[in-house]
Amino acid sequence: MDFKKVTVAGGGVLGSQIAFQSAFRGFDVTVWLRSDASIGRAKPKFERLRTIYLQTLEAAKTNPAAWARGFGPERPDDAGIDALKEQVERAYASLKLTTSYDEAADADLVIESIAEDPAQKIAFYQELAKHLPERTVIATNSSTMLPSAFAEATGRPEKYLALHFANEIWRNNTGEVMGHAGTGQAYYDQVVEFAEAIGMVPLCLHKEQPGYILNSMLVPFLNAAEALWANGVADPETIDKTWQLGTGAPAGPFRILDVVGLTTAYNIVIMDPRSKDPETVQGKIASKLKAKIDAGETGVNAGKGFFDYHK
Amino acid sequence: MDFKKVTVAGGGVLGSQIAFQSAFRGFDVTVWLRSDASIGRAKPKFERLRTIYLQTLEAAKTNPAAWARGFGPERPDDAGIDALKEQVERAYASLKLTTSYDEAADADLVIESIAEDPAQKIAFYQELAKHLPERTVIATNSSTMLPSAFAEATGRPEKYLALHFANEIWRNNTGEVMGHAGTGQAYYDQVVEFAEAIGMVPLCLHKEQPGYILNSMLVPFLNAAEALWANGVADPETIDKTWQLGTGAPAGPFRILDVVGLTTAYNIVIMDPRSKDPETVQGKIASKLKAKIDAGETGVNAGKGFFDYHK
Repeated sequence: MDFKKVTVAGGGVLGSQIAFQSAFRGFDVTVWLRSDASIGRAKPKFERLRTIYLQTLEAAKTNPAAWARGFGPERPDDAGIDALKEQVERAYASLKLTTSYDEAADADLVIESIAEDPAQKIAFYQELAKHLPERTVIATNSSTMLPSAFAEATGRPEKYLALHFANEIWRNNTGEVMGHAGTGQAYYDQVVEFAEAIGMVPLCLHKEQPGYILNSMLVPFLNAAEALWANGVADPETIDKTWQLGTGAPAGPFRILDVVGLTTAYNIVIMDPRSKDPETVQGKIASKLKAKIDAGETGVNAGKGFFDYHK
Repeated sequence: MDFKKVTVAGGGVLGSQIAFQSAFRGFDVTVWLRSDASIGRAKPKFERLRTIYLQTLEAAKTNPAAWARGFGPERPDDAGIDALKEQVERAYASLKLTTSYDEAADADLVIESIAEDPAQKIAFYQELAKHLPERTVIATNSSTMLPSAFAEATGRPEKYLALHFANEIWRNNTGEVMGHAGTGQAYYDQVVEFAEAIGMVPLCLHKEQPGYILNSMLVPFLNAAEALWANGVADPETIDKTWQLGTGAPAGPFRILDVVGLTTAYNIVIMDPRSKDPETVQGKIASKLKAKIDAGETGVNAGKGFFDYHK
């Protein structure tokens, strides 16, 4: 893997994190954005990430639990942490934001993290293909779509695959790597190496799987918990306590749902056509989630979801 | 709750643990067994539990992590631990083993923990009913059957419900309490209090649910993980690492399966008729589990399952 120049397309929650983390780990990063307005919206995100990285590093000097795995496998001494803080400043200063396809295309790797809208992705890939040099590999961070759906649009199916990140990548440092049937092994391996190089733990999928690995397990698990609640079998507190005591996990399903956000959980359940019928489990889950969302109890970010997070 | 005398029917893995823990926490415990041969098989189990309790308590003097929650919420000082060790000896000496229904029936609470065979359970309940005083409450520890299936056979449906324990109850101290539609609330509440009195955390179900709370979530979660493996999406090691990194859990699904045992996992999957077809996910899971079972890799107890436990 001799990637040096990386372009991240999209400045949303994940796009900004991927770009910042890659720059922090020494890559030459360009962020491609659709418009000057997008650039305006992205800038405060990078400022916020700079602050988070600096504060987290400073906190880790006295509190080992504050150390985030994406900063490195081991917490260094104070001098080492100060060196990392300088890396953060260099990363922040080095980020190039552009709306130009030509500038975006000057890259060894493009990571696509734009809206989860197939038409937008196809339009982006097709336009990008006109500018991109032969060597460039493209990875999508899409959570909900499969690379096979876009491989042709990229014009380089063998150099196209998925590299999927979790939110707060400096802390939740996983990179699920998933090709489609036509992805070349050499390019897959390069992206695995790149994931490691930016401090991620690469999690390798051998074939395409909707939801990758984590969501393939998390969704049925959370569904089962939601069904117990919606059917009136037990309360969220009891269900969470059961899971924690029974498996030793630090959090039960309803605390995880509060982190995921109840709106996302609702959007997942209403994708199931059975949710239209209020007599089905899916219908009951949808109705009970909607009542909480309407009450503003959408999870940790709202201060209240299934649990209360107000101080 | 003024239960004092408790009969545990059955001296299997769970029955012996429930009897021992109840005696340890000060209840007057009789163990009903089907035959003198069953008594012979039960005795070494109680000897083993006595040793485990004593060794665990002694270990907890120097190692706080050895403390088991079923011994009490807080680890006491050495003198307090020595007092608990005397309680263990008293419990061990106090256990009464009998094949007599008359002796078994002299109880405020009967906990049924006999074989998971409906015919055997019905025969036991019907015979017991001839001997039991009016006041006695009956709780079943059945993992796989619902109390509504046996409520009539007990002759006292309002005083019948489920109290479901986890293996190694001195450590995994949960008691899932589940009535059927005809269970009286007063008796439900008494069993909740009893569960607390023997050091369990009562987990209250408001209605009948096959699998209670824990297995209702664990089974679809483990199924999803098995499907990723059987479909060749990812390796058990990768799947476990993904779950641990993504949720902070101490163990992933394949390590849990090693504890549950692959034979149990296999028996669960072949209950699904789709497992007969080798082209289905269920069929693939069954076939891959069977290959491991045939190789003797049945889990932690065998020293090897998905992971290796040999020293």
